[in-house]
Amino acid sequence: MALTDPAVVAAARARYGAAREAGLSLDMTRGKPSPEQLACAHGLLGAVECEDERATDGTDCRNYGGDSRGLPEMRAIFGEILGVDAERVFVGGNASLQWMHDLVVQALLVGVPGGEPWGGPGRAAPVKFLCPCPGYDRHFAVLERYGIEMLSVAMGDDGPDVDEMARLAGADPNVKGMFCVPRYSNPTGVTCSDAVVEAIASMPTAAPDFRVIWDDAYALHAFDGEPDRLASLYDLCATHGNEDRAVLVTSFSKVTFGGSGLAAVAASPANTDWIREFRSAQTIGPNKLNQLAHARFFDGSIAAVRDHMKGHADLIRPKFAAVLRVLDERLGGLGIASWSQPRGGYFVSLDTAPGCARAVIEMAGEAGVRLTPAGATFPYGIDPQDRNIRIAPTLPALAEIETATGLLADCIVLVSAGE
Amino acid sequence: MALTDPAVVAAARARYGAAREAGLSLDMTRGKPSPEQLACAHGLLGAVECEDERATDGTDCRNYGGDSRGLPEMRAIFGEILGVDAERVFVGGNASLQWMHDLVVQALLVGVPGGEPWGGPGRAAPVKFLCPCPGYDRHFAVLERYGIEMLSVAMGDDGPDVDEMARLAGADPNVKGMFCVPRYSNPTGVTCSDAVVEAIASMPTAAPDFRVIWDDAYALHAFDGEPDRLASLYDLCATHGNEDRAVLVTSFSKVTFGGSGLAAVAASPANTDWIREFRSAQTIGPNKLNQLAHARFFDGSIAAVRDHMKGHADLIRPKFAAVLRVLDERLGGLGIASWSQPRGGYFVSLDTAPGCARAVIEMAGEAGVRLTPAGATFPYGIDPQDRNIRIAPTLPALAEIETATGLLADCIVLVSAGE
Repeated sequence: MALTDPAVVAAARARYGAAREAGLSLDMTRGKPSPEQLACAHGLLGAVECEDERATDGTDCRNYGGDSRGLPEMRAIFGEILGVDAERVFVGGNASLQWMHDLVVQALLVGVPGGEPWGGPGRAAPVKFLCPCPGYDRHFAVLERYGIEMLSVAMGDDGPDVDEMARLAGADPNVKGMFCVPRYSNPTGVTCSDAVVEAIASMPTAAPDFRVIWDDAYALHAFDGEPDRLASLYDLCATHGNEDRAVLVTSFSKVTFGGSGLAAVAASPANTDWIREFRSAQTIGPNKLNQLAHARFFDGSIAAVRDHMKGHADLIRPKFAAVLRVLDERLGGLGIASWSQPRGGYFVSLDTAPGCARAVIEMAGEAGVRLTPAGATFPYGIDPQDRNIRIAPTLPALAEIETATGLLADCIVLVSAGE
Repeated sequence: MALTDPAVVAAARARYGAAREAGLSLDMTRGKPSPEQLACAHGLLGAVECEDERATDGTDCRNYGGDSRGLPEMRAIFGEILGVDAERVFVGGNASLQWMHDLVVQALLVGVPGGEPWGGPGRAAPVKFLCPCPGYDRHFAVLERYGIEMLSVAMGDDGPDVDEMARLAGADPNVKGMFCVPRYSNPTGVTCSDAVVEAIASMPTAAPDFRVIWDDAYALHAFDGEPDRLASLYDLCATHGNEDRAVLVTSFSKVTFGGSGLAAVAASPANTDWIREFRSAQTIGPNKLNQLAHARFFDGSIAAVRDHMKGHADLIRPKFAAVLRVLDERLGGLGIASWSQPRGGYFVSLDTAPGCARAVIEMAGEAGVRLTPAGATFPYGIDPQDRNIRIAPTLPALAEIETATGLLADCIVLVSAGE
């Protein structure tokens, strides 16, 4: 891949020099909601008032006690989002990452229903997980911490490569599970097709205690209109006799407040019994006042949640449009990069020519534009082709996004030209 | 032990029969704050208002980010409570139980600083913990879940039997740690003497990675005046070259709202680095808005927290006085039971004659007075002498406490008399 037009390189060089001179300070490292998105949830503050702290089931949300699964009104809403009966939903904590981390930890120490403990780092044959990638760095970090070997699987336009997954999981009983962001995936923005979901639900696995941790983090996060339809992994697993395979999680960290939202998990009766057991050892119960505040703010209604997310979409849509427009203006037709065209989620995923991503990110950093570190979207932080760059445009203001994306594009031109 | 006065038994029998006829429904099973105590914290609701969600360090508490240890203003308060520099305090989650559980889990899977992983249930030689008892059932439940063998150690009037602990921990490298509620202990109300704290800090242990999880749950919970002074385990451990031994936890579940308070952990630099690592795998960060609400409600001041707890004390004091008065009236001088005289905390611990506790609790339950299940204050739920009963008087109203305690006393008389 080579640039044929020296004028393009010269223009990029001039702009980059000027930007470096100006000294930018722009951060597109993480998918954080903007202050304007956060303001949409201001009604949550003070949503619970004195003398009115009871949930619909009569629980005094100020005290210990109540259903360990969380408030019925929030279980109902998360049940709708995850497509699982509210009876099998747990709402608790402020981060779906904690559910995912703790599920892995419990599987290692105690085993999941129907299986022995997976075992810790000292285990003779290491536990392995399938890792669609590029993917979410925090999934990989959980696996790395506990010595779980990560097997990369390519992420395509309709989800991960299911043939490769079936081959790996079918042959080796140490392949115990996988993480997947099935809708508007992090970072490629892909939603799994019905065929992919069905393949994941039905594929024979050598491990009888194989688990799919289905991280539907962007279930509500369309830029325009209704979110992409996603087939129900849970129902398809049940249809294929693998009901215990699916563990679904989501959170409100990108719905209300980052870190002060709610997180939920849903699974089969056997899995939820198991979750109830470990939760009873781990905690007295969830923060029910925060759940009650959410229930009041959304009036106990999934429709209100969806409306709220239309407000987010209106704020986010122009930012993604700006990224795509600038990339197209600066890089379109040059043949030195390709990028995703997401319809929802939090990221644009860009691929440079092989061997360029690290240099591009470093060059952008030197001019004050911080991007997600190179390699972060791959297991062990190593992008084997050194080409993927994750762009997170939700937090900065529109003008900043245009500046940062332009600078990124210029860096791609310069690195591709060997500068 | 025998009753000499048949009139006492007859009176108890008559009252018990009448109570059973009346059909009570009283719950003294758990140490829960009363609605009046919870009302003391009503100002916490709405303490954070729109457009004013920044901590003193500038963190926008509505979003991801900020110090993973929690807000500086709450770390300062918990640092004062735990007697540890705020730099080495983590504030996060809503339950100190979760910190304790997760510390054990991490030790099993990854190992604590300076040690190998303790190993899971399948380990050849089981990990063992020293368990002062009677003690807190949820500590025991964590250990039981992960196959950690519990070695009972007697709780005396100034803390656990340190000679026995030193003997057990000194001889066996599989003895990896202990839980202890050092102040107003659950259930006996004992505060560890300086000598006991020093002995725990200094005792040689065969395991170099021995840990003391110091659950100072009732640090602020005196009934009258200032709380009991507790020597600093952390400082004494450091003095004796065992700085990494001490891990201190506490929570606000019995300060503001049960389940919607804050929890904190403090430890040595090596331990806090380790905590930071596992927290970074487990969560994006704590619920900072709840921390900010607490900081605002208490005006960032430990003095305000202590004042707040004086309000609790005024509500709790008469309830404990009622329990002690009724026990004294009904059982004083009979020689069939002894009980603690706590100056703080949440419980009265009562010992019947050996072999009576289970029958007493069952008899009380048949008349509608629910008490903590027999054996709950011992490892594996087995009180070897079947004599300990934990009375939790904070939740019910005063009149209910008098009725329930009277009924309990009558049951003790009846069971002791062989009825």
